[in-house]
Amino acid sequence: MHAGSSPIIDFQTDPARYRHWRIEPDGDVAYLVMDVDPAGGLSEGYELKLNSYDLGVDIELNDAVQRLRFEHPEVRCVVIKSGKDNVFCAGANIRMLGKATHGHKVNFCKFTNETRLAIEDASENSKQIYICAINGNAAGGGYELALSADHIMLVDDRRSAVALPETPLLAVLPGTGGLTRVTDKRKVRRDRADVFCSIEEGIRGSKAVEWRLVDEVVPNSKWKETVSARAHEIAARSDRPNGSKGITLDGLDRQMAADRVTYSHVDVEIDRLRGLVTVTVRGPAQGVPASIEAAHALGDKFWPLTVARELEDAILHLRANEATIGVVLLRTEGNPQAVLDHDAFLEKANGDWLLREIRLYLKRTLKRIDVTPRSFIALIEPGSCFAGTLAELAFASDRSIMLVGTRKGDIRQPAAITLSAANFGACPMGNGLTRLETRFLGEPDTLVQAKARIGTAIEGEDAAELGLVTVAYENFDFDDELRVMLEERTSFSPDAMTGMEANLRFAGPETMETKIFGRLTAWQNWIFQRPNAIGEQGALKLYGSGVSPTFNNERV
Amino acid sequence: MHAGSSPIIDFQTDPARYRHWRIEPDGDVAYLVMDVDPAGGLSEGYELKLNSYDLGVDIELNDAVQRLRFEHPEVRCVVIKSGKDNVFCAGANIRMLGKATHGHKVNFCKFTNETRLAIEDASENSKQIYICAINGNAAGGGYELALSADHIMLVDDRRSAVALPETPLLAVLPGTGGLTRVTDKRKVRRDRADVFCSIEEGIRGSKAVEWRLVDEVVPNSKWKETVSARAHEIAARSDRPNGSKGITLDGLDRQMAADRVTYSHVDVEIDRLRGLVTVTVRGPAQGVPASIEAAHALGDKFWPLTVARELEDAILHLRANEATIGVVLLRTEGNPQAVLDHDAFLEKANGDWLLREIRLYLKRTLKRIDVTPRSFIALIEPGSCFAGTLAELAFASDRSIMLVGTRKGDIRQPAAITLSAANFGACPMGNGLTRLETRFLGEPDTLVQAKARIGTAIEGEDAAELGLVTVAYENFDFDDELRVMLEERTSFSPDAMTGMEANLRFAGPETMETKIFGRLTAWQNWIFQRPNAIGEQGALKLYGSGVSPTFNNERV
Repeated sequence: MHAGSSPIIDFQTDPARYRHWRIEPDGDVAYLVMDVDPAGGLSEGYELKLNSYDLGVDIELNDAVQRLRFEHPEVRCVVIKSGKDNVFCAGANIRMLGKATHGHKVNFCKFTNETRLAIEDASENSKQIYICAINGNAAGGGYELALSADHIMLVDDRRSAVALPETPLLAVLPGTGGLTRVTDKRKVRRDRADVFCSIEEGIRGSKAVEWRLVDEVVPNSKWKETVSARAHEIAARSDRPNGSKGITLDGLDRQMAADRVTYSHVDVEIDRLRGLVTVTVRGPAQGVPASIEAAHALGDKFWPLTVARELEDAILHLRANEATIGVVLLRTEGNPQAVLDHDAFLEKANGDWLLREIRLYLKRTLKRIDVTPRSFIALIEPGSCFAGTLAELAFASDRSIMLVGTRKGDIRQPAAITLSAANFGACPMGNGLTRLETRFLGEPDTLVQAKARIGTAIEGEDAAELGLVTVAYENFDFDDELRVMLEERTSFSPDAMTGMEANLRFAGPETMETKIFGRLTAWQNWIFQRPNAIGEQGALKLYGSGVSPTFNNERV
Repeated sequence: MHAGSSPIIDFQTDPARYRHWRIEPDGDVAYLVMDVDPAGGLSEGYELKLNSYDLGVDIELNDAVQRLRFEHPEVRCVVIKSGKDNVFCAGANIRMLGKATHGHKVNFCKFTNETRLAIEDASENSKQIYICAINGNAAGGGYELALSADHIMLVDDRRSAVALPETPLLAVLPGTGGLTRVTDKRKVRRDRADVFCSIEEGIRGSKAVEWRLVDEVVPNSKWKETVSARAHEIAARSDRPNGSKGITLDGLDRQMAADRVTYSHVDVEIDRLRGLVTVTVRGPAQGVPASIEAAHALGDKFWPLTVARELEDAILHLRANEATIGVVLLRTEGNPQAVLDHDAFLEKANGDWLLREIRLYLKRTLKRIDVTPRSFIALIEPGSCFAGTLAELAFASDRSIMLVGTRKGDIRQPAAITLSAANFGACPMGNGLTRLETRFLGEPDTLVQAKARIGTAIEGEDAAELGLVTVAYENFDFDDELRVMLEERTSFSPDAMTGMEANLRFAGPETMETKIFGRLTAWQNWIFQRPNAIGEQGALKLYGSGVSPTFNNERV
């Protein structure tokens, strides 16, 4: 998982390169067909049988979900189905999990969770509504994929079932939100959920409906026509526009070097010796488009979309490929007014499907920061553009440091934070609150004061006093204070930092989403370390060997 | 942690046996003085210096909190303070943690968390309001103890500070709700919380107030008088009665044998070979008291209070001393009507301080089941009394099995569940909902139907249909089905069961309490297993040795 020691995991792909998924359009419906190539695993040593998946399969799924939103505005309902006969999806590949490092398992589950949440975001906010048509067994991660859909259909062929067999079979938990979605989304009665999660073979037929595990079962003979009818019926509920033309998400403008990744508007400088990276996000080079049509014409070159994609890729790259990097310094460069102009443009044109998509993409990218197990420190210096949407980078950070005034000989604007309406609703965190609402949970008056300052550049001590930055330093202190802070931060236990950050970032209400990343993920990570799962006699290690696991029966 | 291999941990104590705490009454105020005996550790090999604590210290604290409620109705404000000069409390003893098994650490944190929540329950619901007077350093668990109080006072002597130094010093998280209370109770801004949790020496003086870490700082010269004044001022807010006489909590009527613990109304039969225990709770032997005064005269012999205490002790005993027991079968025996009569008596007299206390005690005991890492299975058989409050035992269980009708030759009443008003509000779970509300989150109509059946015995298939039990079996199936279920359950990985149960039991809203037991505890358990904390080069292992820990810097 470290650059240099193993192949880079690349989160970019496109349909021409897919090995595991197909998009089959049918008017206002698209079928998203899972047809995993057993030989297409991301690493050696396992076969992706029975539509089981690894991170590579999910990278394609994530790509497909994004493209359906941007490239297919005409699609109002997406049907996830299997391209194989009599099998829907066997879940995460167990041999892959058995061989993977703890870090890879955790990172894999995080990404698949984000993809499931992106599917729910598409249904809820893009009105590109996902349904799932289960023809065959949907086990473990297969059923968890189905759970991300708004409507689950199961074929009634006396064989096909839904199941979460992780606990009885593998001594681990379903790792992609299954338990939380069963209790909190499907609202399955807890004792039934307990029974369901203990049955290897799962539950099928009308009982699956009665237990709220699926929404309907359909006889085999009427399967295809019923799925199609339901999809078109659900498509009719969508508010997506008629006759719109999608944009194309081209490959990113990205150069990778040994200690640097460069995009058109994002730079990543890697300092492995010190265990830190500097991510610099550049503001728009141009003014806002003259019209909505002009924005459409820019397509993926429109600055907010470019930044959302590039920053997302940078974050995913760091997570997967730079495990020893503990600290991310977040910087911005550019003209704050240009960022604010783009915010205003996006807000004004929010009725437009594409601009809505772009805002939702920005929201999702920022959420990826919230759940990234690295310490984020925003550096707010002269020439930066922490304004509006980009100010969220400071609010998403664990700490932010501002330079008071300017540096000698630097004629650029003093460092400032400038708020826009985008900081007050467009980019909620997983807990349903904005980052400023979460930040000022104990000081609602400060939130009101901050809102009153929308549009003004808030500098230095003023920003610190208003609580928008952690601390503001004069020029003669800034570098020393930062150096000490970084030395300290990188000396701490990375595990303790991860746990601390996961707890401190999400004050206030919990949602299904924060439950998944907080409660469920933490328990799963705990179990992923237990000898009963991963020891030489553990269930995950021995799966498929014909040898039964030996458990230490002490309850903890 | 297994009976036989190490000394039994006993959760019963009384003030005459305290080695670490004193209760000093002062009219409507009581000082709860922490003065830990360094030589009074629960095990060998560590000294409880600087008011640091182990499970034994917390067992006394829990006892004191209970007794203050029942034995001192006149006390309206409790001041937690230190009996040592210039030190408040150094938190959990680090050498103890360094030597303890993973299981002991987790169990220790669970119990201390419950005690802190019991303090908050006393402030909120018994109006015996806790404040904390910090004279000296309050570090780690010391500050976490303070965080359980409604009002935190800190002496301003240029030395005394509050701190959560676990992360920088020990590479673990504060284990007793500290992070959650900082963000969600004190509502400290997240970046300040991040800084605070990184500073070994903590924060003192007016900055501690500004950062919302304490409520007031008081100059040394005015310390005693200000604490006293504040305590009496807060006491005046309480609704506790004047001139009431407390009752005495006598030692439990308890016999311990090798494979059995017997109380007056609770039996625990231990089957270590099969990894299960049977806990039988007996209903009241007598009718309700003739009056509130008569109930007071019964004191701790009044059935609901007896049962709350005995069941609590049984649960705590199993957790601490029977680690290899994975399954708890919950049974009841007695007259359902007598239970319902007691429920009605408690409800009618809820204005009385003692009866209010008893209901709150029942609530806390049931909550202990909710967070106990064992599989609970309720067996609802003829002659049982799963009525009202005792029906909560079935609803707190992971599964419940009812026998349809009666067994041959058994002339007792068929098995039934009978609901009372107590099932609809008196005993909320940590998530703020009743167990039935949580159970029927997806079927609100069923909740209405259940409420309409208050007072009627709901038997067999009827109870299963209404969703009050998991399953109802005819006599000829019951034993076989149960045997198969138990064989299956005890064959699963105990870790996976613990994680699964912790996720399935708490559908619906999250509260500070569920966040502590879900999110925070799970992360802490994860970190408690990481080599960076507990390995030979880990921070917890090396603390005090003069050797710095060596971390694997990979972020997970």
